Amino acid sequence: MEKQKVLINGERLKQTIEAFADFGRTENNGVTRLSLSNVDIQVRKHFQSECEKLGMTVVLDDMANMYARLPGTDNDQPPVVVGSHLDSVEKGGRFDGVLGVLAGLEVVRTIVENGMKPRLPIVVANITNEEGARFEPSMMASGVLSGWFDKAAMLQSKDKNGVTFGEALKNSGFAGNEANRLKNATAFLELHIEQGPVLESESLQVGIVEGVVGMVCYEIEVSGDSDHAGTTPMPMRKDALFTTNDLISIIRSRMSKLDSELVYTIGRMNVSPNIHTVIPNKVVFTLEARHYDANVIRQVEEIIEVLPVHFAKEKCKVQIKKLWDRNTVWFDQNLVNLLEQSANHLKYSIKRMLSGAGHDSQFIASYIPTAMIFVPSVKGKSHSEDELTYWKDCENGVNVMLHTVLDLAVDQA
Amino acid sequence: MEKQKVLINGERLKQTIEAFADFGRTENNGVTRLSLSNVDIQVRKHFQSECEKLGMTVVLDDMANMYARLPGTDNDQPPVVVGSHLDSVEKGGRFDGVLGVLAGLEVVRTIVENGMKPRLPIVVANITNEEGARFEPSMMASGVLSGWFDKAAMLQSKDKNGVTFGEALKNSGFAGNEANRLKNATAFLELHIEQGPVLESESLQVGIVEGVVGMVCYEIEVSGDSDHAGTTPMPMRKDALFTTNDLISIIRSRMSKLDSELVYTIGRMNVSPNIHTVIPNKVVFTLEARHYDANVIRQVEEIIEVLPVHFAKEKCKVQIKKLWDRNTVWFDQNLVNLLEQSANHLKYSIKRMLSGAGHDSQFIASYIPTAMIFVPSVKGKSHSEDELTYWKDCENGVNVMLHTVLDLAVDQA
Repeated sequence: MEKQKVLINGERLKQTIEAFADFGRTENNGVTRLSLSNVDIQVRKHFQSECEKLGMTVVLDDMANMYARLPGTDNDQPPVVVGSHLDSVEKGGRFDGVLGVLAGLEVVRTIVENGMKPRLPIVVANITNEEGARFEPSMMASGVLSGWFDKAAMLQSKDKNGVTFGEALKNSGFAGNEANRLKNATAFLELHIEQGPVLESESLQVGIVEGVVGMVCYEIEVSGDSDHAGTTPMPMRKDALFTTNDLISIIRSRMSKLDSELVYTIGRMNVSPNIHTVIPNKVVFTLEARHYDANVIRQVEEIIEVLPVHFAKEKCKVQIKKLWDRNTVWFDQNLVNLLEQSANHLKYSIKRMLSGAGHDSQFIASYIPTAMIFVPSVKGKSHSEDELTYWKDCENGVNVMLHTVLDLAVDQA
Repeated sequence: MEKQKVLINGERLKQTIEAFADFGRTENNGVTRLSLSNVDIQVRKHFQSECEKLGMTVVLDDMANMYARLPGTDNDQPPVVVGSHLDSVEKGGRFDGVLGVLAGLEVVRTIVENGMKPRLPIVVANITNEEGARFEPSMMASGVLSGWFDKAAMLQSKDKNGVTFGEALKNSGFAGNEANRLKNATAFLELHIEQGPVLESESLQVGIVEGVVGMVCYEIEVSGDSDHAGTTPMPMRKDALFTTNDLISIIRSRMSKLDSELVYTIGRMNVSPNIHTVIPNKVVFTLEARHYDANVIRQVEEIIEVLPVHFAKEKCKVQIKKLWDRNTVWFDQNLVNLLEQSANHLKYSIKRMLSGAGHDSQFIASYIPTAMIFVPSVKGKSHSEDELTYWKDCENGVNVMLHTVLDLAVDQA
């Protein structure tokens, strides 16, 4: 069969996604599959078995990353890797992560059933603990692969029951050799749900992801005095909550004048002592902002960093702490172009876009040519049992993956 | 001794306050003496013993209120009652409540040591569970005395360990007869720390309290959508926290235009899901406002009640719920004038004022002529280990109490 005409089996893909969702399916048709939990170990075994049925060989590295390899006719060449993660957050969805792994499985199934003999090896990868929902941080294993995180520190990360990642790794039966780590590859390709509303709202089928936007995250603390709500005249108050209100108004006003693609969020806020009859003496909140342009992030930093000075003469004290930042990661332009060509060939409506969420690809991109494909998320929901990507959209995304893998790994007939 | 020249013993008062603070004294020189706890039972026994040494008889009513009675020569006449509470909040101060009870004890000690024979009986009262810190609501027992609260419901109130007030009452050994309840009295007088900064900031010695201000308390809920902080463009967000920011700005702007004596506080605020990478989908906060003028409170209600309408076309939904309100309680004008006369006679600098905090007196005022005396709170602190009233100010307040009790209960020589 001419490779340009090959398509994946959408019905098989759907059944496979549902079969994998049985590992940890929740009452409300979501999935709870925390990294290296019993249910994650079960799904890993199932994944290995499905790969081995196709003649693939599964190897493990020291972070429990799984690499299922279909040999190529030129088997010493760097493989084409399709990967994502099988773990989920607590009460997450059926698509986040697993779709990218099953995309790889479906691509190999299609190649095998069509009797194609790829020149390059094809590896389907399950990267451990992307979510960081059981063991912080997120993207732990890809962070170790890329040298961003220190493995020894990661082994000490504890879940809420005090179990370390190192212990869970040892007990999982999925700890392999460091020698098996993903080191060299022709490409790393990840299909993922968008986790945002843009593709759906613009009625587009596929997102061609050019990179992951940079971000900065601050913690801001406002301190005042916790006086009695009934007995303290307004002019004599040091009300940390009202000062926070002023602060947020200033932040929003100034941020809104920056680039329209900037996103900024105050997601966490804790008020002390949080009693209705007591004036708050402390408010602590996070502010994170994301944009691809480092200059815009720098403008955000200037807005935040001037706040303590701006409030220096106020009754409440304002302190800021930068929790972290990360630069925008740009994916491999050749691969991005190749993904776009595949989508165009398949006549899907597309959008070149950036990811606002973090993915393993952003770390792996530091040493392997990498790119990502997005498919629409209904109402932009993810990390929720409401997460949904229509079957047709899943199928489209995997077809783009198939055609790109074929372009890279299979010589033209 | 001519009664106008009698003064209390300031050194004895100080020692008594410190002795009582030993029951539940905290590391930082505060007091934890939750209602009907072991330490509260101990302090009650000590109080009873000190009263009995003066020839007083202590009776208990069915809410464990204690009434220590010094007989009068006209013993069938309604007594003059001096009272407050011996319970405290967790890590409270050494003055809040206990000062008003010990004022009564010191007044009787002074009368007895001066060989005075009051015509009217004098009762020193310890009212149970004013703070409501262990069993909600606050002012529980005075609320039952005045018919404001239903006793059967109060008996079911549980502490955080699931113990009901009824069980604690039974086990305390301080449950008495309903027949002993405070029913009829010439006056109920309560000395209390101000719990606010006004007297101190104006360098005044004594507050003559004309009443307790009315208040209204609302709970306001803002609902949006908990989308991903990285992937959701700003115009597509339903950010409950940013809408709350707008809401609070409107509330503050409109409230600030009302009477300058209005106080308003947002003391409690909870953000959901409260994760730094997730746009908040829910913010719930309280808003309480206090003022003596019912018209001003009505203006506050109008500002709050229009908010859901004002935000009806916004992306987030705003719901309001009135948690409670209470009217301003005005104390007995004759008693207020008498307190002022006593303070003037003693040459103390005074201020007629209203209480912004709630007190047992506000319930008792519904059926007994009642008034209160305030003494300065350093920095306005209360319900805190930092609570402080200088010994001289305590002494001044008790002298005002003494002279007022003498005016009411002792015939002029």
